[in-house]
Amino acid sequence: RKMEDYGRFLALLASTLLVGFLSVILSLVWVFHYREGLSWDGSLGEFNWHPVLIITGFVFIQGIAIIVYRLPWTWKCSKLLMKFIHAGLNTIAMILAIVSMVAVFDFHNARNIPNMYSLHSWIGLAAVIFYSLQLFLGFAVFLLPFAPVHLRVALMPIHVYSGLTIFATVIATALMGITEKLIFALKNPAYSASPPEATLVNCLGILLVIFGSLILWMASRPHWKRPPAENAKILRPIAATPEGTEVESTMTNSNADKSDLRGNTEAVRKQNIKFDEAGQRSTM
Amino acid sequence: RKMEDYGRFLALLASTLLVGFLSVILSLVWVFHYREGLSWDGSLGEFNWHPVLIITGFVFIQGIAIIVYRLPWTWKCSKLLMKFIHAGLNTIAMILAIVSMVAVFDFHNARNIPNMYSLHSWIGLAAVIFYSLQLFLGFAVFLLPFAPVHLRVALMPIHVYSGLTIFATVIATALMGITEKLIFALKNPAYSASPPEATLVNCLGILLVIFGSLILWMASRPHWKRPPAENAKILRPIAATPEGTEVESTMTNSNADKSDLRGNTEAVRKQNIKFDEAGQRSTM
Repeated sequence: RKMEDYGRFLALLASTLLVGFLSVILSLVWVFHYREGLSWDGSLGEFNWHPVLIITGFVFIQGIAIIVYRLPWTWKCSKLLMKFIHAGLNTIAMILAIVSMVAVFDFHNARNIPNMYSLHSWIGLAAVIFYSLQLFLGFAVFLLPFAPVHLRVALMPIHVYSGLTIFATVIATALMGITEKLIFALKNPAYSASPPEATLVNCLGILLVIFGSLILWMASRPHWKRPPAENAKILRPIAATPEGTEVESTMTNSNADKSDLRGNTEAVRKQNIKFDEAGQRSTM
Repeated sequence: RKMEDYGRFLALLASTLLVGFLSVILSLVWVFHYREGLSWDGSLGEFNWHPVLIITGFVFIQGIAIIVYRLPWTWKCSKLLMKFIHAGLNTIAMILAIVSMVAVFDFHNARNIPNMYSLHSWIGLAAVIFYSLQLFLGFAVFLLPFAPVHLRVALMPIHVYSGLTIFATVIATALMGITEKLIFALKNPAYSASPPEATLVNCLGILLVIFGSLILWMASRPHWKRPPAENAKILRPIAATPEGTEVESTMTNSNADKSDLRGNTEAVRKQNIKFDEAGQRSTM
């Protein structure tokens, strides 16, 4: 049963990577076959860095960064190493997103096109700001060794939620950007005449939605989480009781269905229940 | 501490309702103050039903349908009643979404504008189809009394995931639709000149993102779930052991942090762990 589940995870991961690579390739086909290619001279070739870098960095690399803890062959690596990889991939994604924004501002300024007027630009800029904040806070709280355990436990659900929400928002913003670009760029034949470029880029948009959905599915399955590690021992608040060890051993047996933090709060909750029960029994 | 958490939930619910109502009002201001109002005669007034009905039905009512199980004052109502309300609200949302699509097709046909060429239309149609499928499957599996318990347990995580993913996709599609409409409708001054209408509708888009984020936060907090009810008794597979009752009573004590289905599988898992432990002890 466990091998079957492992196979299912691998199949899903392979599909996700395939859809992600295909998206990057389609963005390159769009830019090189139908548009002006890539350059850095204030021309449309500079603008074209925007979709390519957003899809490569802000969608594909961010997506991989989100599920990097789920890869079963990394479970023997230390949690710290995995945190560095998670933070590193997100840093690369952030840099690419910022460079891709610079490309658009540069292009707009060279052509006297106003900046920041569209809903795409408003939500996109907000997404980059929140993403940077998330990265900074994640670094300060979960990677640096200074934050106390109760703060990490309290912030982890918020970190997960805001990470996934920002990721979804980035994909939504990419879809708006595709819509804008196709309307502006396609004249004679127009977007509404469905030329091959329109069909190709619509398919790119669909792939982005599928990629996002697959990442969110893999990230939200509790039984695909990295199993609780030894640091659960450090985190466990009530260490003196023999029941503590019992609870932990059952956690390790139940395996792979809780992250260390969630597993830990779960253990604490179970212990509290046990204490409650004990209390009730003694008053009975 | 429980009252504090209840207060936090109410504050968040009030903010969500406020943002949702504001979105509906802004869509009406857009249509009546800046556009051609509402009519059903193949004119732009008919098109305008599209944003109004999507925001009212497919975003606002769908959002409320998603969190209806979380409202603490409904926890004394039967689960069946709540399922009817959940299904009923989603049915209303589906009908409004379909009517709003008919309005666009009608308008396009009256003006000889091609249908289904844009990414907005592709993803939007897919969202309506998946939403209808989700509603149909949810009705057949969770509302009708025929599906066996193990099927309900297996499908519940998929139902939750696809519901939330479709909801997020609907909001992304609305943002694309807003982008399209502002580019097409605003000429002299153009969208890029940021006339008041552009600013108002950009703000509407931001409100939709905030509304969606709030709904997803409320829906994904485990401790805000409807507490497990008596039907946990029916669902509980190993009913004969005295440990079964003990596990259930601890579940009810721990309260409000598991849905009945999740709570149930959790209880089964705990029991299995207990049995495993017992087995290990006997071989020791």
